[in-house]
Amino acid sequence: MYTASELASWRQALARLWVDSIPLAAAMGVKIRRLDNDVLQLAAPLAPNRNHMGSAFGGSLQGLATLAGWGVTLVSAGPPESCHVVVREAQMRFLIPVNGELIAEASMPPAAAVATFRMGLQERGRARLTVPVAIRGPSEAPAARFIGEFVAFARES
Amino acid sequence: MYTASELASWRQALARLWVDSIPLAAAMGVKIRRLDNDVLQLAAPLAPNRNHMGSAFGGSLQGLATLAGWGVTLVSAGPPESCHVVVREAQMRFLIPVNGELIAEASMPPAAAVATFRMGLQERGRARLTVPVAIRGPSEAPAARFIGEFVAFARES
Repeated sequence: MYTASELASWRQALARLWVDSIPLAAAMGVKIRRLDNDVLQLAAPLAPNRNHMGSAFGGSLQGLATLAGWGVTLVSAGPPESCHVVVREAQMRFLIPVNGELIAEASMPPAAAVATFRMGLQERGRARLTVPVAIRGPSEAPAARFIGEFVAFARES
Repeated sequence: MYTASELASWRQALARLWVDSIPLAAAMGVKIRRLDNDVLQLAAPLAPNRNHMGSAFGGSLQGLATLAGWGVTLVSAGPPESCHVVVREAQMRFLIPVNGELIAEASMPPAAAVATFRMGLQERGRARLTVPVAIRGPSEAPAARFIGEFVAFARES
């Protein structure tokens, strides 16, 4: 469980990281819509992310889902600045077109998975986390499903 | 086999489609580096596609590979404007960081695969094509591997 103050720090740290360091996230207009003990939800407007059909470009959906999975991995790994994270594998299935705002939602992993992940980081200096991400559709069913494997590396302290 | 004039028309059609219709492709700086009977090669500069580590952002690599696979599917389907194409599934494995220009290379499918694909389009109005794409690394081995499943839909004529 994260305190409200820890979650507020993470919101700031992720927003700064993406806006300052990833020009494509800025071009996509990525915003953190929600970050709490259950979920990280990212949103991006359709206009800069549209394709030739007027719906969301597959590359934008992959980018947004990758950021969501990466964010969950960073938050799960420990305090901000304690490690860095890279994506190792990404898979996305596109189910229905997204005709409005792009919304990617990644659930926070269960406590036991976080404990195992952090133990790996402490003992070996690196650990893997698999993060499923759903792209919101017009109804309950997701418009696309993503699953990413992320690797965290402890920073020298 | 495509004639030089067909290939030149395709280069123009793809460049126009992406620049005019996909703002993110413009933001990434995507260029068609090569299009012939063997391969479609796309390139994008590192600067607008970098991540927090100074290497290529995973979302940019997924976007570039998706465009390359989509382009090969369009070219394989028949003359420009004869159909439209969507990505159905995308999978990418990131092997080594890309520290310079991003280059995605998709091989043109074998003639027999193109024949089957076009027959499906004619008979059912839609057909699927699976396209592997490699992201160039500093040596012969690719920096990342992508495989995408694309669906083409014949336009009403």
